[in-house]
Amino acid sequence: MSWSATILTLYPEMFPGPLGAAIAGRALAEGRWTCTAHNIRDHATDKHRSVDDTPAGGGPGMVLRADVVAAAFDATRNGTPAYALTPRGRPLTQALVRELAAGPGVTLLCGRFEGFDERLFEARAIQEVSIGDYILSGGETAALVLLDACVRLLPGVMGAPLSGVEESFESGLLEHPHYTRPAQWEGLAIPEVLRSGDHAKVAAWRLERSRMDTRSRRPDLWQRHPDAADQSPSGARRPNKEE
Amino acid sequence: MSWSATILTLYPEMFPGPLGAAIAGRALAEGRWTCTAHNIRDHATDKHRSVDDTPAGGGPGMVLRADVVAAAFDATRNGTPAYALTPRGRPLTQALVRELAAGPGVTLLCGRFEGFDERLFEARAIQEVSIGDYILSGGETAALVLLDACVRLLPGVMGAPLSGVEESFESGLLEHPHYTRPAQWEGLAIPEVLRSGDHAKVAAWRLERSRMDTRSRRPDLWQRHPDAADQSPSGARRPNKEE
Repeated sequence: MSWSATILTLYPEMFPGPLGAAIAGRALAEGRWTCTAHNIRDHATDKHRSVDDTPAGGGPGMVLRADVVAAAFDATRNGTPAYALTPRGRPLTQALVRELAAGPGVTLLCGRFEGFDERLFEARAIQEVSIGDYILSGGETAALVLLDACVRLLPGVMGAPLSGVEESFESGLLEHPHYTRPAQWEGLAIPEVLRSGDHAKVAAWRLERSRMDTRSRRPDLWQRHPDAADQSPSGARRPNKEE
Repeated sequence: MSWSATILTLYPEMFPGPLGAAIAGRALAEGRWTCTAHNIRDHATDKHRSVDDTPAGGGPGMVLRADVVAAAFDATRNGTPAYALTPRGRPLTQALVRELAAGPGVTLLCGRFEGFDERLFEARAIQEVSIGDYILSGGETAALVLLDACVRLLPGVMGAPLSGVEESFESGLLEHPHYTRPAQWEGLAIPEVLRSGDHAKVAAWRLERSRMDTRSRRPDLWQRHPDAADQSPSGARRPNKEE
């Protein structure tokens, strides 16, 4: 059975969108995953097909009604774990992507306006997930990102089965930089060690660059990495209740 | 002059994609922004139109050639700041989104395979930005997210000018939850205070919920917030060299 993506949105025409091309598009054509987008508006109950209303307590914008979204969710429920893309959600990580890709699929709810009526999350088994600390006009582009991340991990989708193992975040470190031909370009050379043919030296250089770059570019990631304990002062492990 | 999005990609057909509909699509139709995608492959120099080659030092996958990508970049340069979407990049924040939206536009480079030859970033004024700690099949869905975040902030794009001010991350806190009609749904009521009509009480409740939810859901954000210093022990401000 193929991995199923079910999307609840006011803009079903946005799916599969960019995921209809390239790697994800080939996988879709090969039946490795399915993509079904449902229009939340089809579950509105009044003659104007309203899906939203003004925020309780006042303020700008509109809020998606819990009753209408829940009706859409109930009608399309298929046993896959359900996530709403919202900035209040748990941050998306590569670990969660792996977990979702290993399962039967995912149901994604895309908000618009000021978001969903909070009671939706009390009344239904829908978790909130955030792809990052910025605000989008809706959950749709976030859903495309989440699906892209999952689909590339499905069996048979990536050309080279080893690709993905050494990548950023899989080890808790940023990936090392890459180089390819030409060996010299605009006066810049590929680092000598990468042309040495010495696999052990190449591996050691790559690991060191991963560690260095993570430490300088992403102190937040480095702080959580076991290697950080070996180094001081800037890499010193600090007690952190939240970890 | 309208805000210009210039995209360098192997899949120009992915743009504007989902941003051709809804809020971003209306803004595009109204000329508030422009979206031009260029195919990196048009700048290949051999008869096979190669854009990639094997990684120096070995390993799976392919690396985008610095010379070909730089040629594409040089041919389309238009004075807007240039960012490559890569997992090694600086994390995208709402502050960076605001900065980009306030400027003339942005040039985005979308990688594929194992990414770009690192020398590209030494030889050209191209910064790396990451939309989150997960791996995508390419930079295209990330570019759509970054553009979505910017376009909604352009003058005249959002319906309600106040929308956006109280949102998540703008204050360093998650946004408070929202509610709308019906007042009662499946036995769940809208919190009484939101129906009180007392604007000061509503504002106080919302701020407290923002603080509570940020503290419990996103201790990493809470730790960086000035309010965290007022609370202990879990909100206690810790010395942090990286901040």
